[in-house]
Amino acid sequence: MKYSIGLDYGTNSVRCLIVDVETGQELATSVFEFETGQAGIVLDPADHNLARQHPADYLKGLEVTVKAVVNQAQNNSPNFSPDDIIGIGVDATGSTPIPVDKTGTPLALLDEFKDNPNAMAWLWKDHTSFAEADEITQLAAREHPEYLAKCGGTYSSEWLFSKILHCLRVDPKVFDAAFTWVEHCDWMTAVLTGTDQPHQIKRCRCAAGHKAMFNSNWGGNPARDFLTKLDPKLEPFYKTLSRDTFPIDTKAGELTQTWSDKLGLPAGIPVAMSAFDAHLGAVGSGIAPGKMVQIIGTSSCHMVVFPNDTDLPDILGICGIVDGSILPGHFGIESGQSATGDIFNWFVNYIQPGGPQAGTHESLTEKAAQLKPGQSGLLGLDWNNGNRSILADQRLTGLLIGQTLHTRPEEIYRALIEATVFGTLTIIKRLEEYGISVHEIINCGGITEKNALLMQIYADVTGREMKISRSSQTCALGGAIAGAVVASKNAGGYDTVNNAQQAMCAVRDISYQPIAENHKIYQQLYGLYKQLHDSFGLADHQSSLGNVMKQLLDIKAAV
Amino acid sequence: MKYSIGLDYGTNSVRCLIVDVETGQELATSVFEFETGQAGIVLDPADHNLARQHPADYLKGLEVTVKAVVNQAQNNSPNFSPDDIIGIGVDATGSTPIPVDKTGTPLALLDEFKDNPNAMAWLWKDHTSFAEADEITQLAAREHPEYLAKCGGTYSSEWLFSKILHCLRVDPKVFDAAFTWVEHCDWMTAVLTGTDQPHQIKRCRCAAGHKAMFNSNWGGNPARDFLTKLDPKLEPFYKTLSRDTFPIDTKAGELTQTWSDKLGLPAGIPVAMSAFDAHLGAVGSGIAPGKMVQIIGTSSCHMVVFPNDTDLPDILGICGIVDGSILPGHFGIESGQSATGDIFNWFVNYIQPGGPQAGTHESLTEKAAQLKPGQSGLLGLDWNNGNRSILADQRLTGLLIGQTLHTRPEEIYRALIEATVFGTLTIIKRLEEYGISVHEIINCGGITEKNALLMQIYADVTGREMKISRSSQTCALGGAIAGAVVASKNAGGYDTVNNAQQAMCAVRDISYQPIAENHKIYQQLYGLYKQLHDSFGLADHQSSLGNVMKQLLDIKAAV
Repeated sequence: MKYSIGLDYGTNSVRCLIVDVETGQELATSVFEFETGQAGIVLDPADHNLARQHPADYLKGLEVTVKAVVNQAQNNSPNFSPDDIIGIGVDATGSTPIPVDKTGTPLALLDEFKDNPNAMAWLWKDHTSFAEADEITQLAAREHPEYLAKCGGTYSSEWLFSKILHCLRVDPKVFDAAFTWVEHCDWMTAVLTGTDQPHQIKRCRCAAGHKAMFNSNWGGNPARDFLTKLDPKLEPFYKTLSRDTFPIDTKAGELTQTWSDKLGLPAGIPVAMSAFDAHLGAVGSGIAPGKMVQIIGTSSCHMVVFPNDTDLPDILGICGIVDGSILPGHFGIESGQSATGDIFNWFVNYIQPGGPQAGTHESLTEKAAQLKPGQSGLLGLDWNNGNRSILADQRLTGLLIGQTLHTRPEEIYRALIEATVFGTLTIIKRLEEYGISVHEIINCGGITEKNALLMQIYADVTGREMKISRSSQTCALGGAIAGAVVASKNAGGYDTVNNAQQAMCAVRDISYQPIAENHKIYQQLYGLYKQLHDSFGLADHQSSLGNVMKQLLDIKAAV
Repeated sequence: MKYSIGLDYGTNSVRCLIVDVETGQELATSVFEFETGQAGIVLDPADHNLARQHPADYLKGLEVTVKAVVNQAQNNSPNFSPDDIIGIGVDATGSTPIPVDKTGTPLALLDEFKDNPNAMAWLWKDHTSFAEADEITQLAAREHPEYLAKCGGTYSSEWLFSKILHCLRVDPKVFDAAFTWVEHCDWMTAVLTGTDQPHQIKRCRCAAGHKAMFNSNWGGNPARDFLTKLDPKLEPFYKTLSRDTFPIDTKAGELTQTWSDKLGLPAGIPVAMSAFDAHLGAVGSGIAPGKMVQIIGTSSCHMVVFPNDTDLPDILGICGIVDGSILPGHFGIESGQSATGDIFNWFVNYIQPGGPQAGTHESLTEKAAQLKPGQSGLLGLDWNNGNRSILADQRLTGLLIGQTLHTRPEEIYRALIEATVFGTLTIIKRLEEYGISVHEIINCGGITEKNALLMQIYADVTGREMKISRSSQTCALGGAIAGAVVASKNAGGYDTVNNAQQAMCAVRDISYQPIAENHKIYQQLYGLYKQLHDSFGLADHQSSLGNVMKQLLDIKAAV
């Protein structure tokens, strides 16, 4: 029996699996909740755009979870030996860049900077850099529209260059101390395989392509001029940007003796190039041309692939189209929603309708399930955390319309669910407009297993069957698949990602079929959603409402 | 010492005062909560547009409260005698029509109909007749635009003819059994002075002018044709419609022996013509040209008067302009908001943010008061119960925009308050566009005494001082003023309403001054409110959003 390890660094915790490479079944699993800040996130009460993580949590989580799964596997299966581990794969959230010094050490691990949020990892959902994102978008629109075309028309405040530029502006001390900035996922493979030469840290195709304007169309990285026009001080950083990037079937290196000792694994195990969590989640869900994978959590990602032997046009408002970012040999197309579960969590945790005991997800879902589509008269926009696709605008906010004096919490809860699903449908429609068909939808993420109402609404709104990935840990499973591929077929792994997926991925028996009469009502409601979406989301819309949300944010900022 | 009795029939209770006619001070006060239905209102869980009251509650409330105040006055003041009561005035909500039989008896008081909501009083906030209101508006727009011009451009579902026509359509048995329909306020004066000849029941100018298209411009009632074109079956009802209507300085009649015996008052006391609660509330607050009276409660009324010796144009979207409806010799101009306190009540009672203990008006107000204008980034439309002025459209609904993942209940609560005040400012601006200046604003209603935050927001949004009426019971006080006038000067009363007001009305020492920096921010926010208001409120607006709320209601109705 051969096994692979998958490590999945999420927003609040890291999860580790040992997976049977023949069947994809989990032998052992362990979770480590990040310890710094609130649920692992360093926040700033004065600036709700700020979200950071401490790299020390990443290292502790690595050690704790790998040791735990090895121990667990030995207990569960007397025949298991750490020598049976043939590969390791890692994913992480992103863009979550970390400033590191000349030794590849994150600045936050140095005494001088240990409590400075700017020296920590800038978590994907950190939006402090919205002004810089706008600056980058404007410069690209003027000088390199092709850069924008591959990332949905707007460079996001969540992404690498925005964050580095913001750091340069607000904390030059941290900026100057940084030899370079490394994506969290790349830093993890570097740690496992040796970090002492930070300019040799391998960059994964996924992060580079989706968040750092890397594309073979223009020879890889964006032009040096482009970054130095943003600020000449970006020059040294530019020099450290590697020109090579790699998909997940490439070996990043081998497990070092240091980490072999720490983790109780043999040194030399091949470690696969990493990718973002959603991308490896798509792999672990069995993504293939025509099969969309939806990863639904606090936010959502919608992943599709398209063979790279066909021309693919740029897709307006879709975050990224990157050759090899998901599957080697395919364009990886990522779109997403900045908040899904986070909107429901907001309603339950901040509004607490009926009180913390009464207004739980479970009770609200139960009551909301009694309602018919359209029955509440409510309609919402799912922008409480901005809009990633297809508007690519973080400075949009939520909207709810249709309240009467009789509107009840479960009606609002259902409207919030529906709003997020209408957001998904908007993405699917945009993909289809560009010829990317979606024959099959596979869902993963805890909420897809737990909330049947949510899945039924997805089916009813989209008019499509909703399948659920067999594994509850598709991201980590995707890591394990990558590990099994870089291990090679000779060592008991696979020669291609596709072959590994065939063996290791599956969907569950349960799936959700659209109910025709519900779909009909949702088609009407979607028409109204789209009207609100365009009116409030497009700055130049005839409604003249396209700037209302931003003007409210401007007034708020001025107060 | 001479006294007058004021009776105020509100939405949930009736209140009775004995007032010293020399000073306006209250000698005794009593309240009776209506007993039928929920908080005195008969509801239909299947149709939240329905709101009825049982006339039996009106009679019981009359007897209970008058006896209580007489008893209380005798205890409080040994010199008091029921013989010192020189007049009685009554107000009620409206349009709240009651179907009555040939003896003037409400059908709901007959055994046959006693549990039939259609045979009860159709409370002002009953909106079951929205389709009929639309039908009446359309017919009037085609054939008698002048009728609409005096009632804000739209005939409301809250009003007399809509309700009668709806009854004809849905419950012909009740419709056929009704000899005629009488406004609640008119029925009360009829009860006190004798009802046995229902075709002789005097109609007050206020109800007739504001809700039943009565205007001297076209000789009083609307044309017979107009009603019979709506439905030929309205002919008999039309015949019972009296051609005379009267302001509050007219005597309706004298207290009958029957009610003298029941109430323990001398027979023959003059009873003044009634008016709606808001109109007598305006009188009790000292309304005069240039002085707006705001009555803020579950809904709000905004009352101004203008001397009737000057021409006054029709005012688009203002519910009613009626000569003599508030003060004799003046146009009474009524506008209003369909929900004010009811919106805050909805949030506290239906949403219960943080739970019923945590999310009280008091705690939310306390936290909301810590916020600065604009700080929440939220903005709302105050249409949870439709819009009475200046859109005159009951089929509008609520809207909230600007929510993030950090939005807190007190921010929503404050946004709801601000939305209602923006609604008021929209009314003031409309009046001023038509040359009706508002030099002074006097507020009344319990919430104006209790909620300093609300009053400060009124001052900050409008940029005007907010004064508070001395009496907590201005509607009943207005009734007592009318009673003192019909009593006549000879009997110890007054010759004119104005003279009675001079003696009996006053404002409190406390008032609220606008804070300049807040006003500045609210001016910006109001600009955005007005954009949303026009976009969602005007059916033909360039935004194309003018029908979104109605389409949601259509979908809801079809489900």
